[in-house]
Amino acid sequence: MDEPKRRPRVVVIGGGFGGLHAVRSLRKAAVDVTLIDRRNHHLFQPLLYQVATGALSPANIAAPLRGLLRKQANAEVLLGEVVDIDPRAKQISLRDGDLIDYDSLIVAAGSSHSYFGHDEWEPLAPGLKTIENATAIRGRVLTAFENAERAKSEDERRRWLTFVIVGGGPTGVEMAGAVSELAHATLRGNFRRFDPATARVVLVEGHDRVLPPFAAKLSEYAGKALEKLQVELILGAHVSQVAADHVQVNHPDGTEQIIPAGTVLWAAGVQASPLGKLLAEKTGAATDRSGRIAVGPHLTVDGFDDLYVIGDLALFTHGVEQPLPALAPVAMQQGEFAARRIQSQTEGRAFDKTFAYDDRGTMATIGRFKAVADIKGMKFRGPFAWLVWLLVHLMLIVQFENRLLILLQWAWNYCTRNRSARLITDYEHRVEPKS
Amino acid sequence: MDEPKRRPRVVVIGGGFGGLHAVRSLRKAAVDVTLIDRRNHHLFQPLLYQVATGALSPANIAAPLRGLLRKQANAEVLLGEVVDIDPRAKQISLRDGDLIDYDSLIVAAGSSHSYFGHDEWEPLAPGLKTIENATAIRGRVLTAFENAERAKSEDERRRWLTFVIVGGGPTGVEMAGAVSELAHATLRGNFRRFDPATARVVLVEGHDRVLPPFAAKLSEYAGKALEKLQVELILGAHVSQVAADHVQVNHPDGTEQIIPAGTVLWAAGVQASPLGKLLAEKTGAATDRSGRIAVGPHLTVDGFDDLYVIGDLALFTHGVEQPLPALAPVAMQQGEFAARRIQSQTEGRAFDKTFAYDDRGTMATIGRFKAVADIKGMKFRGPFAWLVWLLVHLMLIVQFENRLLILLQWAWNYCTRNRSARLITDYEHRVEPKS
Repeated sequence: MDEPKRRPRVVVIGGGFGGLHAVRSLRKAAVDVTLIDRRNHHLFQPLLYQVATGALSPANIAAPLRGLLRKQANAEVLLGEVVDIDPRAKQISLRDGDLIDYDSLIVAAGSSHSYFGHDEWEPLAPGLKTIENATAIRGRVLTAFENAERAKSEDERRRWLTFVIVGGGPTGVEMAGAVSELAHATLRGNFRRFDPATARVVLVEGHDRVLPPFAAKLSEYAGKALEKLQVELILGAHVSQVAADHVQVNHPDGTEQIIPAGTVLWAAGVQASPLGKLLAEKTGAATDRSGRIAVGPHLTVDGFDDLYVIGDLALFTHGVEQPLPALAPVAMQQGEFAARRIQSQTEGRAFDKTFAYDDRGTMATIGRFKAVADIKGMKFRGPFAWLVWLLVHLMLIVQFENRLLILLQWAWNYCTRNRSARLITDYEHRVEPKS
Repeated sequence: MDEPKRRPRVVVIGGGFGGLHAVRSLRKAAVDVTLIDRRNHHLFQPLLYQVATGALSPANIAAPLRGLLRKQANAEVLLGEVVDIDPRAKQISLRDGDLIDYDSLIVAAGSSHSYFGHDEWEPLAPGLKTIENATAIRGRVLTAFENAERAKSEDERRRWLTFVIVGGGPTGVEMAGAVSELAHATLRGNFRRFDPATARVVLVEGHDRVLPPFAAKLSEYAGKALEKLQVELILGAHVSQVAADHVQVNHPDGTEQIIPAGTVLWAAGVQASPLGKLLAEKTGAATDRSGRIAVGPHLTVDGFDDLYVIGDLALFTHGVEQPLPALAPVAMQQGEFAARRIQSQTEGRAFDKTFAYDDRGTMATIGRFKAVADIKGMKFRGPFAWLVWLLVHLMLIVQFENRLLILLQWAWNYCTRNRSARLITDYEHRVEPKS
């Protein structure tokens, strides 16, 4: 009896932009692909802030991985948590003890927020990385308004109506704009004992401008657009304390500012997945301060030609001035590169390319009809940039089954300023006011 | 200084069909209305099973109470939990110690599932009453399929692919039909190690037919329709044990049947809100076995002419053969009746009517294009009944802000058999298989 020739097994850890794109790029390769994720869905993270502010439902921006890969016969999906990787035995371990052998491994486990050594702040100031984060933040923001309605004093009401967002990168800017729109437009007329438009939205950023990776004039525009949305900017200052009822901000001149606030949201700092630390121990690979794994020009770990690290978890420094940023397009291009290299090797073809990031531009949105975009050195701002932002995101989201509905829902929300998904569903946030 | 004449305060507990309808019916009354709910949203419960099976998102069937009452100037909404009612002092207490005085009180606190003295079954066999229930059930059902993909033996796989639904009333029938459609249509091609169509969906009902409140020939049709959907019916039998990995069913002939099952869903029995017990203690009102409060012909509690109990919590027996059932139309008509009586009294007009339920019919849906309806004695079944069911539910849901989108989403789902909201989001259900 002839045993059928075994096809090489490619294991991909993580179904985010990088991992999913790697799996899809392997669809014509003569390999068996196993995608492992702790979650059953791919998440379109750039729109997560819209879930956190009640404009979209989780299912609008999260698609089941099985549905996305249903027709890719050489791919299977496993719901599981990777707890160990043995790069010499070429084997990974799942939480429940299952062992999975691989011929090639692509680690795309992503990142979470860094609290700069203050992990105790996490429950007080949640970050925005998962669907659960988004619905929890939505519950907190809406509950703050509920608590303001039931406040026993004006001080308490002011506190519940103060929202501090830490971090002025794209996520922080989007959150600040959306919370402000929620207060000024969506919730108008919803309360009897205060005007929601009196809410105070504060954005704290350590650099002297918002959106620090962008060109200065785009940052300036974004800052002005935020101020028009009545967002209060505190620039060049650092948060030194987060408590249940206030935030302390330290200014460079040494002054300390206490902001009483019922809601603090975290949009600062990036911390690589814990799998990064594990990989560094097992392979001796270098890491940077945020835990990213240094990869070679082929996106592989030094000494392990079949071990790829891509996306937010990868530290790629070859031929670039700055390490590549943690952005979806970087992850997607890296996923495609790793897949092509694996496919070429499987087919016995030479593959002498090294990875080079094709930067097609970066952009961030601030609110309705306002955005900034830097595309191949050209700077855009205002409604045109917003239109570009919208089109690019719509194009990217077309992989979702119900894209037409998302488009309609989105158009509807933008026209009516409707945020109908204003649900408080987490028990722990459905609280009585702290008095 | 003249003190302005104080308007009477009407407090409504519960923002379900009865409570919300009462508040809206008071919109032209010279009263101040306070609606108190533990949740910030009104829930369109008849479609909750569609959330539990991934066809709709929570926000499609839950609307923020504040949004619904935004334009009703004499109404305010408070998010809070009622812990005490003093019908003599006409005062209620909230969890955080707040006291609220009322002139008239409408208690519409609803009901939850009864486990017939086996409350320990609740975590093993969740009921379907809240958004959290629905997303938890969705997570369990989807995780069962995930676990089947990773099962280590055929026995284990069979167990994960067996779904037992306890209770053959409308909710049980709808859930059974929807889980079966999920397995046979939606998940087709999603798994590599088994065919989801091999899933076993079992419906257990104590009566000798499903939908026992309906006419026998409608029950018979519903039973046949379920069998066509490959749902296995166990009739005239009772569940005597629920465990993490099986259900025990006792047949009237004394035989015991063990069904190994990874997922058990509860759709049997009704238990009135705990506020019923409290009210009975405070007023001496009679209750029935499920804890409902006996009300007089004006829906008030004997001896307390300003204390109304409506909806699932009320036991109304005047001029009817059977106590009125726990249905949305009963609750809505009762809410309207209480509101009219209060308004008349406020305006000093005589109000000599007593409550009479106008039964416009009952209906239940079984799956796509299949339903039964009993309308003023006329019995309908099949696609026509389903169309009636669809139209009635669409009409009822038009109070929602985004009704157009719900309609589109629904039409889309029915045409494509799409269930795009297949998200597992509860951490506790995102588990590794039990081996």
